[in-house]
Amino acid sequence: MAEVEVPDIVIGRLPIYLRALTLLSEAGQEFTSSLELGQKLGIGSAQIRKDLSHFGEFGKQGTGYEINFLRTQISKILKVDREWPIILVGFGGLGQAIAHYGGFASKGFHVDAIFDNDPDKIGQAVNGKTVQDTANLAQVVADNKIKMAIIAVPATAAQVVADQLVEAGIEAILSYAPITLSVPNTVRVQHIDPVVHLQRMTYYLD
Amino acid sequence: MAEVEVPDIVIGRLPIYLRALTLLSEAGQEFTSSLELGQKLGIGSAQIRKDLSHFGEFGKQGTGYEINFLRTQISKILKVDREWPIILVGFGGLGQAIAHYGGFASKGFHVDAIFDNDPDKIGQAVNGKTVQDTANLAQVVADNKIKMAIIAVPATAAQVVADQLVEAGIEAILSYAPITLSVPNTVRVQHIDPVVHLQRMTYYLD
Repeated sequence: MAEVEVPDIVIGRLPIYLRALTLLSEAGQEFTSSLELGQKLGIGSAQIRKDLSHFGEFGKQGTGYEINFLRTQISKILKVDREWPIILVGFGGLGQAIAHYGGFASKGFHVDAIFDNDPDKIGQAVNGKTVQDTANLAQVVADNKIKMAIIAVPATAAQVVADQLVEAGIEAILSYAPITLSVPNTVRVQHIDPVVHLQRMTYYLD
Repeated sequence: MAEVEVPDIVIGRLPIYLRALTLLSEAGQEFTSSLELGQKLGIGSAQIRKDLSHFGEFGKQGTGYEINFLRTQISKILKVDREWPIILVGFGGLGQAIAHYGGFASKGFHVDAIFDNDPDKIGQAVNGKTVQDTANLAQVVADNKIKMAIIAVPATAAQVVADQLVEAGIEAILSYAPITLSVPNTVRVQHIDPVVHLQRMTYYLD
């Protein structure tokens, strides 16, 4: 695999390709093409071929891509061919929904510890885990060499939590707090704010 | 306001600007600059000025942007200066979390009807609403002139639901189903899949 830097926007599309390939595979299909993938995803087939070409030659002229082979390769590239422990900070309504959500574990992301600073929430049990005091966060992250965290605290608390996570050695943060977090450029952050998604659609409505 | 088409990527950044301006306003600040906004958001100040220039002249040389004025203007542009009724399809774990989530209504998006096709869920009450049979969906959308919907059903059901929504006249869909939906180009779709966000970060971890 070449050591040239692949644009982040390309990396961002790989999980979408992986998801589409997994659905095709689950539907019993063995081969696909950049044309079929592109139609399913609303992405140009040339774009898909170019994105994948950063990592090697995965398709064959005529037969296209063998779905399970390509799934394996993309999983390796994204490093999702392994299990990732993850911590969750915030056990309010959203944090509780995330703790109960089965979709993370089925993709290899295991919520191994949950933190909150509310005494009423600390000690609550969920899925075999006990909600811990945020004061324990750094110790748990260090002891278990955890690199990923989910933030589900209110906007007013999110930056403080992000700073604690970075200080503890977390390198990747998925934040549900409706605020843009500031972190060192050695740390990755992804934001999910459903209101932002709704607000960018109303512009187009009458 | 000019009738030239503004790129969708610009529209997509406006809710981020609006969110940052709202936080600044709530913190008591009256003026800001493209430089300050850019630093908070990790976006170049020239980009912010260029994005806003599509809609008029909002800043003044020297004093920058008056925060509440700019908030009002962006709200009008995005049409979020009004209330939007919205329906929710799917009342499993995720749908229930969404139904209980207070963050939509506080921004003007009101979940006015909830649908599921599971007889055990139909009739359940939440926030003063009763979960209805999906068979009623088209009638409710037509009667209430609803244009927005949230999909929170499993991947295997999502395309069928999306087709029903489009048929019923829905013009904007926020989907939490882990599948890329296919809709006519007159309909807007936004996807939220937290696994995709996690998978695009693991690439960068050791």
